[in-house]
Amino acid sequence: MSEQALRIDEAELRGLLDGRWAGVRERARDVVRGELFAPVYGLSVEEHRERTLAQLLALAETDLPAYGFPASVGGRDDIGASVVAFEMLVADLSLMVKMGVQWGLFGGAIRALGTERHHAEFLPRVMSVELPGCFAMTETGHGSDVQSLRTTATYSPVTGDFLIETPDEAARKDYIGNAARDGRMAVVFARLRADGEDHGVHALLVPIRDEEGAPLPGVRIEDCGPKAGLNGVDNGRLWFDGVRVPRTNLLNRYGTVAPDGTYSSPIENPNRRFFTMLGTLIRGRISVAGGAGSAAKAALAIALRYADTRRQFTRPGSDGEPEREVRILDYLAHQRKLLPALARTYALHFAQEELVTRLHELSRAPRRDEHAQRELESRAAGLKAVATWHATETIQTCREACGGAGYLAENRIPQLKADSDIFTTFEGDNTVLLQQLTKGLLTNFQDSFGDLDTMGLTRFMAGKVFETVIERTAAIPLIERLIAASPGRGEDADLYNRGWQLELFEDREKHIIEGLAGRLRRSRKDGGDAFEVFNRAQDHVLAAGRAHMDRVVLEAFVAGIDRCGDKSTAKLLNRVCDLYVMSVIEEDRAWFLEHERLSTSRTKAVTRAVDDLCRGLRPYAVQLVDAFGLRDEWLGAPIALGSEHARQGDAAPARG
Amino acid sequence: MSEQALRIDEAELRGLLDGRWAGVRERARDVVRGELFAPVYGLSVEEHRERTLAQLLALAETDLPAYGFPASVGGRDDIGASVVAFEMLVADLSLMVKMGVQWGLFGGAIRALGTERHHAEFLPRVMSVELPGCFAMTETGHGSDVQSLRTTATYSPVTGDFLIETPDEAARKDYIGNAARDGRMAVVFARLRADGEDHGVHALLVPIRDEEGAPLPGVRIEDCGPKAGLNGVDNGRLWFDGVRVPRTNLLNRYGTVAPDGTYSSPIENPNRRFFTMLGTLIRGRISVAGGAGSAAKAALAIALRYADTRRQFTRPGSDGEPEREVRILDYLAHQRKLLPALARTYALHFAQEELVTRLHELSRAPRRDEHAQRELESRAAGLKAVATWHATETIQTCREACGGAGYLAENRIPQLKADSDIFTTFEGDNTVLLQQLTKGLLTNFQDSFGDLDTMGLTRFMAGKVFETVIERTAAIPLIERLIAASPGRGEDADLYNRGWQLELFEDREKHIIEGLAGRLRRSRKDGGDAFEVFNRAQDHVLAAGRAHMDRVVLEAFVAGIDRCGDKSTAKLLNRVCDLYVMSVIEEDRAWFLEHERLSTSRTKAVTRAVDDLCRGLRPYAVQLVDAFGLRDEWLGAPIALGSEHARQGDAAPARG
Repeated sequence: MSEQALRIDEAELRGLLDGRWAGVRERARDVVRGELFAPVYGLSVEEHRERTLAQLLALAETDLPAYGFPASVGGRDDIGASVVAFEMLVADLSLMVKMGVQWGLFGGAIRALGTERHHAEFLPRVMSVELPGCFAMTETGHGSDVQSLRTTATYSPVTGDFLIETPDEAARKDYIGNAARDGRMAVVFARLRADGEDHGVHALLVPIRDEEGAPLPGVRIEDCGPKAGLNGVDNGRLWFDGVRVPRTNLLNRYGTVAPDGTYSSPIENPNRRFFTMLGTLIRGRISVAGGAGSAAKAALAIALRYADTRRQFTRPGSDGEPEREVRILDYLAHQRKLLPALARTYALHFAQEELVTRLHELSRAPRRDEHAQRELESRAAGLKAVATWHATETIQTCREACGGAGYLAENRIPQLKADSDIFTTFEGDNTVLLQQLTKGLLTNFQDSFGDLDTMGLTRFMAGKVFETVIERTAAIPLIERLIAASPGRGEDADLYNRGWQLELFEDREKHIIEGLAGRLRRSRKDGGDAFEVFNRAQDHVLAAGRAHMDRVVLEAFVAGIDRCGDKSTAKLLNRVCDLYVMSVIEEDRAWFLEHERLSTSRTKAVTRAVDDLCRGLRPYAVQLVDAFGLRDEWLGAPIALGSEHARQGDAAPARG
Repeated sequence: MSEQALRIDEAELRGLLDGRWAGVRERARDVVRGELFAPVYGLSVEEHRERTLAQLLALAETDLPAYGFPASVGGRDDIGASVVAFEMLVADLSLMVKMGVQWGLFGGAIRALGTERHHAEFLPRVMSVELPGCFAMTETGHGSDVQSLRTTATYSPVTGDFLIETPDEAARKDYIGNAARDGRMAVVFARLRADGEDHGVHALLVPIRDEEGAPLPGVRIEDCGPKAGLNGVDNGRLWFDGVRVPRTNLLNRYGTVAPDGTYSSPIENPNRRFFTMLGTLIRGRISVAGGAGSAAKAALAIALRYADTRRQFTRPGSDGEPEREVRILDYLAHQRKLLPALARTYALHFAQEELVTRLHELSRAPRRDEHAQRELESRAAGLKAVATWHATETIQTCREACGGAGYLAENRIPQLKADSDIFTTFEGDNTVLLQQLTKGLLTNFQDSFGDLDTMGLTRFMAGKVFETVIERTAAIPLIERLIAASPGRGEDADLYNRGWQLELFEDREKHIIEGLAGRLRRSRKDGGDAFEVFNRAQDHVLAAGRAHMDRVVLEAFVAGIDRCGDKSTAKLLNRVCDLYVMSVIEEDRAWFLEHERLSTSRTKAVTRAVDDLCRGLRPYAVQLVDAFGLRDEWLGAPIALGSEHARQGDAAPARG
């Protein structure tokens, strides 16, 4: 890598990262400021909840909630903007999640699963937070396996209403945001029974509190109590005993019950109907991936600014230079902790932008494209998993990289860590999501998404020809051109040749998926029990999902750099991209060796390349992290805002 | 691996794990119970501090504090016991750390660095907590580089006292436990100036608060405020301005000042003197490694018991068996999250026992053995690093493995995570410690420990012949016998052959260290700047330390199993040991491939072996974790204590 200094065009870089919804980001930067939105710590649970609600009410006064709602109720019908707005609320992740519950999950379910009449009746009050609500899906006994929920909604043609019941402890609604304190109504997911039949899981609007905030008759509410983080969000448990709601409270876009109890649905197959309904709720998952990205960016901003100023141990002066203590970011070990994480954060940022764009476009498509929808859902599952794992790992690393200062609440990292920790679990457990992604890859998105049951697997295992289809998700002509120009697999290919890198990632993905398909079918033929066969291959299944996401993320990064209008800035981004690629290869280099994709001298060269790239990028680290455009007051950490400069008696750099 | 069921002799296993200080563990199990010691959550910082102090005062009434103090003041002079007692306080890590500050650090420094007269005057009041104290070493600007501390203690023969001064902001004492609220006196580390000379860092007793708890004149105290965890410990900052203490307040075992200002020391070389003083404080570091182990055990106990009962997704019934949802510990992915971590926790447990034994024995040796002392310090540095990283990673994994339940404060994991997070930083930053270890290995413990300066490196780099000396640390004849019987490097060696495994670990260690030595010397000869040469090799340096510890830990595990008196139990432990070995190899299999130690078919076999061992150990997981003997009330998590059984309507297992 050339050691020549590069000039970064800051406006160009910011514009590139802000992307299609730059206006929304700028709006959030204007709105989310001042005392009300500043990060705080040391509040009691009740104080934090009160503050978070006050923040939400203040946001309701702005134009931010309108993005996600239809024009018919005064919204702007801009789904992409609503996801980006969510992601910008990094000043307090409790507010981010509380907003997500109210407008994204509660409002989003009414929008996606309800019909015009539900929209007109409820959405205006959802937007204004006059009607605070819950998304009551998860039950204590069923988190990942939503299809097996046990709450029942039984229709009676006599009374013309639904009876909502919690049959046992496993069926209590658990971890429900907005339930413990503020929620007045809940979208309750329950098995719909009508006409003597179980029609599977549907959603209904169920009032849970009266105007004074007291639980309604038949509704029992329990507080989940203090949590590791997100204590501004009031999670609770709900039980229903003899609760009745009118027939019209069924969110009936995908299944309706006539007054006489006759059930009908535009989707015949109950399995397909269920997964179609779930699929409409994909926005929450995509939002969480974006929120995780913001949390990782904030932690990196704090840790890199601190490491750029903090000094430890003396480097002996050479040739008349005075002896001076070394900035800790000058140590290779410290660079290796933070810079590959920064590179991956960049890569994921571009992948997120692609995914949001895709979601947005499908939401406006004149007719439903089943294949595209399933590909979107698979990718959302995969990106949510890799982005939230990345955030958890990165924030942990940043905590340690800041030493004792990183443990103090005043420096923000503890709160970022604690708040974002649940992101790997909620909106879908990551391990389950990666398996759903791989299932989609195995079936080339033909089957119902998320259908992880063994019957589907049995069908798959009995299949014959299997060929992976690599579907590109970004800048298709560019990527194909680069791959076509790849020098191929030889020893001489430049490690930094983008076409070679793309081909390497693609080849790994294909090989892992095809190997998995073969393995599943072989074991099945040998008479293995389908569950056992799949279970024994579970690690292979997860590896397939990861390899797929590495490739998709790389393509998005390459496409992003291609949009950069400044040559020198693009050059720098290409180095960041190289660091992303080299650190992914380094991490999985055992695979490349085991499958004879790279020789041992090549993998050793990759390790040296990571070292070189870290050293080369070190001077730009602070600029790169500042380009994310997180306001200083959102970081709110003295160690990131000049306290270390001041302590050392250096002039503090000017910060915007 | 044979699938035949093994019978575990629970008493034998408990006895083996309890080890040499079983009596201390039993005593802790008796003493640490009831409401006062039960885990709590949701306290305010002030409430938590108050509670922690009350707990400490209650412990002071028992025989636990006596272990670490000399017989001359009524102690039991049993250093090993004092470390084990610390480790048992897992019911609340704030109490563990507060106790460590009072008796281990404050009392320990007076014991190790002071003389008879300090012991007699202060230690009884330290033990009874009549005199709560601080260990004021770290400064804001100097955490890892203790040798560069800037606080000064200047002796005046005129007044006969020391003037303690904080020259600048970088020199304020930071993160000091017991400082913000309870401490009355501090052991202050400062540059001793006498007779116009700087004699380097020494420790002095400095009163900081009066009887009413008000800061004494010239002492400024600031609260570090809320932290990610350990909020029962009152960390603070200290500044000294014109504070005077009598000459006799110098802890003068290794350096003393006569009334006329003449400095003298039993150790001529100032560098050696400094590191000898630091070396006497090694107990704190070893205690932290043990405490981290306990935190990991507690998290695993919670996560494994929960995973053993919680069910998700249905396995289709085969051959007339009823369809039933699958216990999540039956999934390979879940086993792979938790069982290798359990195996490593076992391995580290035995390594910790070895280390404590070594510390204990050296503390009783009639004369100082420099080499043995440095080996102990190196090993303590290494074990502290790997044990605390393991704890952080394992507890994180357990949080995720418990899903939403793992995020609720009532289930204890959030507190374990937040409290133990700083263990990778305090008592020595892990990255720095591993480098100190490697330095010790390169110099075969000849040089002053911890002397990481470039001068020492320059000397090393100029050296000629280098040969690694593998020093065994446990059960030497047994290990040598096993290695002698190893089938060697061929393809056919049984992966489970212990001699082959030991040889593989040893060979990797030697190769990495010798490669590093060669690399450092070559680059130096090529004219590289010593700092740059070392910095560029930093990742190699860390890898050397890790490889060394993997070998030391394995030897301790093997030695531990050899002490097991029951054949069937030993067989099970051998499987656990195999899982430890296979997962270490799997993690670093790229290295074994790159250095042609294993073929690709061998590394693939290792991956299969991890799967097999996980499946084979799954039925014993709960018994294995219960054998650690952590009382149910210390876990204090409903999900670990039968709530999940009860919810499913199963009979809850009886728990002790």
